[in-house]
Amino acid sequence: MTVLIGIDVGGTNLRLGVVDYDETTPNIPPRLIEEKRFQTDFSNMCKIHTPEQAWRAILNATAAAIDSMHVKYPNISAVGIGFPGFIDPHTQKISQSPNLPGLVDVDLSADLSQLIELPVMTENDALAAAYGEYVTRASQINHLIYLGLGTGVGGGLILNGQPFQGQHGVAMEVGHMSVHPNGRLCGCGNYGCMEQYASASGVAISYLEATGQQYNSHEIARLAHQGDTHAISAYSLAGKALAQALAQVLKVIDVTNVVIGGGMSAAWSLIEPAFAQQLNEDLIPALRGNVNLSISSMGDQAGIIGAAMLVQKKFII
Amino acid sequence: MTVLIGIDVGGTNLRLGVVDYDETTPNIPPRLIEEKRFQTDFSNMCKIHTPEQAWRAILNATAAAIDSMHVKYPNISAVGIGFPGFIDPHTQKISQSPNLPGLVDVDLSADLSQLIELPVMTENDALAAAYGEYVTRASQINHLIYLGLGTGVGGGLILNGQPFQGQHGVAMEVGHMSVHPNGRLCGCGNYGCMEQYASASGVAISYLEATGQQYNSHEIARLAHQGDTHAISAYSLAGKALAQALAQVLKVIDVTNVVIGGGMSAAWSLIEPAFAQQLNEDLIPALRGNVNLSISSMGDQAGIIGAAMLVQKKFII
Repeated sequence: MTVLIGIDVGGTNLRLGVVDYDETTPNIPPRLIEEKRFQTDFSNMCKIHTPEQAWRAILNATAAAIDSMHVKYPNISAVGIGFPGFIDPHTQKISQSPNLPGLVDVDLSADLSQLIELPVMTENDALAAAYGEYVTRASQINHLIYLGLGTGVGGGLILNGQPFQGQHGVAMEVGHMSVHPNGRLCGCGNYGCMEQYASASGVAISYLEATGQQYNSHEIARLAHQGDTHAISAYSLAGKALAQALAQVLKVIDVTNVVIGGGMSAAWSLIEPAFAQQLNEDLIPALRGNVNLSISSMGDQAGIIGAAMLVQKKFII
Repeated sequence: MTVLIGIDVGGTNLRLGVVDYDETTPNIPPRLIEEKRFQTDFSNMCKIHTPEQAWRAILNATAAAIDSMHVKYPNISAVGIGFPGFIDPHTQKISQSPNLPGLVDVDLSADLSQLIELPVMTENDALAAAYGEYVTRASQINHLIYLGLGTGVGGGLILNGQPFQGQHGVAMEVGHMSVHPNGRLCGCGNYGCMEQYASASGVAISYLEATGQQYNSHEIARLAHQGDTHAISAYSLAGKALAQALAQVLKVIDVTNVVIGGGMSAAWSLIEPAFAQQLNEDLIPALRGNVNLSISSMGDQAGIIGAAMLVQKKFII
């Protein structure tokens, strides 16, 4: 039995899990034995410290979290990390992290490995979640698209059972697919990116624009269930934008096993009607009726298990 | 030395080439020994005959073309065909051909093989051209996007040196990427598809809309070189639409070796200014300046050589 640690790094929390799997029985999915959440506020650290100080603090906090679990499971053999940033496929460094500003070309795998004396692998968090969805799937599929609806919208692609990074580690930047050419300004510098509508913050902006009132996506979901038409519309806009982007994605890669995850997927019943209609309109005819869509039932665990199982991955690119 | 036939099937012409390569020296690209063009009018055949009659006529004309070359090169070992349609990756049948209406689920490889007594492989024509660009490249690259600007706009993707078909054989349907949500109606049923602007027919429509005058893309290119502002604008619209679609493609797959081919690429100097500006605007920051774009110097030959070399291919999907 191989015992691994998987970590999903976020802006405010770090989620850590102990995962085991038996290499001799590849049909039995890996198992999450224990899970723990640490409040880390990395996003804040990056705002108030110099990049060097912030990086040192991030490394130490992550090492401390791992050490606390390593004591309990001394047979841990490696650590996999899903990180909110672009991972350079050649150097394996984090080239950039939109949510952790200041971190440029940092080598989490090497720096952390030195502190904890275990091998470390780092991958983009949405790609790690995609891999987690893939490795825990009971049915035999080889290719999978994962769309993670959170504060932003991330994406991951699995081809032939392996995570697909792209030549510069920015494959599946689906949150930045353009859906409204003259739409909302995005942090990436373009207008009308899908995540400006389909993410938790996008839904909040839609509601604010319509009503002048500031609520978060959970509160807006509650209002929608109570019949608030502006709240319902905000989620319809999300569904429409998501479908427009997904139709474009499918025109490029034609991988039709699609898993929707992330916090916002809990509100799928509010997103789905507009999504289904728009997807059917926008798809090329050959794919209509052929999209095998499912909502993740794994919650946070996909990112943790996927990160741990990076130890197994090979590269297509 | 292996001797193969490669065929590029079009609506009006069939182009056939004899290709040889030495399996023992994989670094030396395949060579086109002889090339011949046959006027076939398959598109017309499909309009005036029943699908069964048209299919029989297409098979016989293709077999006759191959036989005429087989006599001269008796050591031909296989035939590869680039066909303007979707190829089902599971059955290898042509599931549909937008330019050859009526052909549904026909098995070109099996039916033709029976007539000519040689193994036959069939692939989408743009994907065959992508593979031709890949196998004849002197520089060592593993991944490549091909965009073929012709009557429509086709696309092909090479990953790890192998043609990428997608789960339903419709990967890289880039001509149908949406660039103007309320734009021109496309044959696929959607509005504002890229090929409605960036193809030869798209340029003709742009010029017609602006001037009321019907010219083909070659004539419009000539007018543009003479300073006709509407002609220049028609090509600018093409460049802009192509860049918008390519930026979206790169957000999905992050493969930045891009080859532009097809008849319209001869007018690249007219397309390029608007293309370059729009691409730079639309790309995600991480890819700006990282797109390695080239204009094909192979003309028709990419499709022929690529089709012949399908004999070597493996499948990613």
